[in-house]
Amino acid sequence: MAAAVAGEEVTNRQVILKRYVTGCPTVEDMEVVTGTLRLAVPPGSPAVLVKNLYLSCDPYMRTRMTRHAVPSFVPDYVPGKVLDNCGVSKVVLSGHPDFKPGDLLWGVTGWEEYTQLIPNPVFRHMINHREFPLSYYTGVLGVPGLTAYAGLFRVAKAKKGEYVFVSAAAGAVGQIVGQLAKLTGCYVVGSAGSDQKVNLLKTKFGFDDAFNYKKELDLNAALKRCFPRGIDVYFENVGGAMLDAVLHNMRHRGRVAVCGQVSQYNLERPDGVDLFRLVGKHIRMEGFRVAEYAGEYRRFEEEMARYLNEGKVVCVEDVAEGIEAAPAALVGLFAGRNVGKQVVVVARE
Amino acid sequence: MAAAVAGEEVTNRQVILKRYVTGCPTVEDMEVVTGTLRLAVPPGSPAVLVKNLYLSCDPYMRTRMTRHAVPSFVPDYVPGKVLDNCGVSKVVLSGHPDFKPGDLLWGVTGWEEYTQLIPNPVFRHMINHREFPLSYYTGVLGVPGLTAYAGLFRVAKAKKGEYVFVSAAAGAVGQIVGQLAKLTGCYVVGSAGSDQKVNLLKTKFGFDDAFNYKKELDLNAALKRCFPRGIDVYFENVGGAMLDAVLHNMRHRGRVAVCGQVSQYNLERPDGVDLFRLVGKHIRMEGFRVAEYAGEYRRFEEEMARYLNEGKVVCVEDVAEGIEAAPAALVGLFAGRNVGKQVVVVARE
Repeated sequence: MAAAVAGEEVTNRQVILKRYVTGCPTVEDMEVVTGTLRLAVPPGSPAVLVKNLYLSCDPYMRTRMTRHAVPSFVPDYVPGKVLDNCGVSKVVLSGHPDFKPGDLLWGVTGWEEYTQLIPNPVFRHMINHREFPLSYYTGVLGVPGLTAYAGLFRVAKAKKGEYVFVSAAAGAVGQIVGQLAKLTGCYVVGSAGSDQKVNLLKTKFGFDDAFNYKKELDLNAALKRCFPRGIDVYFENVGGAMLDAVLHNMRHRGRVAVCGQVSQYNLERPDGVDLFRLVGKHIRMEGFRVAEYAGEYRRFEEEMARYLNEGKVVCVEDVAEGIEAAPAALVGLFAGRNVGKQVVVVARE
Repeated sequence: MAAAVAGEEVTNRQVILKRYVTGCPTVEDMEVVTGTLRLAVPPGSPAVLVKNLYLSCDPYMRTRMTRHAVPSFVPDYVPGKVLDNCGVSKVVLSGHPDFKPGDLLWGVTGWEEYTQLIPNPVFRHMINHREFPLSYYTGVLGVPGLTAYAGLFRVAKAKKGEYVFVSAAAGAVGQIVGQLAKLTGCYVVGSAGSDQKVNLLKTKFGFDDAFNYKKELDLNAALKRCFPRGIDVYFENVGGAMLDAVLHNMRHRGRVAVCGQVSQYNLERPDGVDLFRLVGKHIRMEGFRVAEYAGEYRRFEEEMARYLNEGKVVCVEDVAEGIEAAPAALVGLFAGRNVGKQVVVVARE
């Protein structure tokens, strides 16, 4: 495709929310619509117009598809409007002094081909390491990577020699948590939802052990088998029965970094968890949002780029082709269809 | 009654667990049996034989009346055996160099008239302030007082100007939490289960506001009314629906000190709580056991004695007469029948 020209009218396919979601999301809850857009930014505005290349699919997006009486930390999506989430984009037009056409950025953008946005200082970063696939900036070098780093070191304060458990361990965040914990000298076990993923954890990501939670009749027994001496740090991605079993297997002064609870997002009422277990072992359970650690991003980016260059961290992505594939890619997260970081390629340049 | 004499045989009434409890405990789950005991300590042993004067009734005892597959932090009670918990006792005979007949102690003892025990360095304290009723050492000057102090200051780290919410606020721990938070310059609201208790919170304990949770159709709305700007610190005594509503009303970086969850102890399966709320506001939820803070007891005792002498802290006790009354007093906690700290007088000297 030829370079975009200011003033040109282009087609702009968008993924919109069709209706608020109840239960498990389906592709019918979304719609891919085709509109047109004139390539322009308002005169005098610091807006930029970007072409979206890679879009990130993340389980937390499901929580935004329900209308909340008490607002959550990110706005609910609105039926009839385009979804948004982090992605990698190329600047087409810019009214902002820091950005010029051709620049590659990552940050929050629309689930569409072109987006006009005001650069957001929290997550609107230049892409500094072109030696990696651009898609890495939706994963290991983007929000999931920084989430793993902040949750493991800033929230859970994992230290050398500790016993670390990660759920959804083959996912975008979990695979990085496990590798960072191993680099720190922890004993690391992960859970995942298929034998293929368990195999990845052990062979590709270097976990000490892993199990397929769908094949375990008793999660408590599985954790006891993997952690006869108990768990110091739990990186929580799933909630529900797994969290309950973990709380029964924590060590004194254990820490739970609550990143997500994917098993709970489609439920009308959350599963019960025996929180009285926090008392006996003096367990600290702490939620966190990666946005609070945005100030650490540049340092993280350099550290992670070094690990990637040295082969100390690897990543696995599951790439869906084309924006039309985005709804199914998002829905697939809840069936565990993705293997590794789920990303959608809208365009390669 | 005449002073006990070594070698004498005395009757010893005991409260035993008759069977493991399912659901709400009843007086039929326990039995008061009468045995005999020869007043003696084994020669050469550091044991002491004490006469029990005041016994503390605490909701957590319910958790020990069920057999746990995964042991909790305190041993389950055993059917046919005497219950135990903190109380105030007088030394009758001693093989221990630090204790002599007539000394008044508080610490873990049996639910019986006489107990032979090995002094436990964690909670086996001399009673230093005889100017207060001895029963205060089962409450404001004992475990509930230190629990309030440790939970509020060490775990939740409440600071001047913060918004503090306490559930079961008229209870043994809650009433002290509220008064300590007020002394620290916090805005303090409590919940309780009767209008009489709510009135106590406002008029006697100096809470800024209070509500009867049984009369609120919507706990979330009640908390919004009391905390339009949200809650910084929640001192958690109840769990379940109240905890869920609180998590919807926490402020950024709010802290939940988990002391107990009385609404959950009689349930087969815990109520669901929307723990994903921890994420958006970066909420820290931390359980704690007072035993970890035993090293601070002496300093706490002096500070609290000063507050009591200055009238800055007051306490309300609900006193049941005689060991026969102990099972009903314990059961009554779960119906909210007690007003203030529930204590049982076994003997007054």
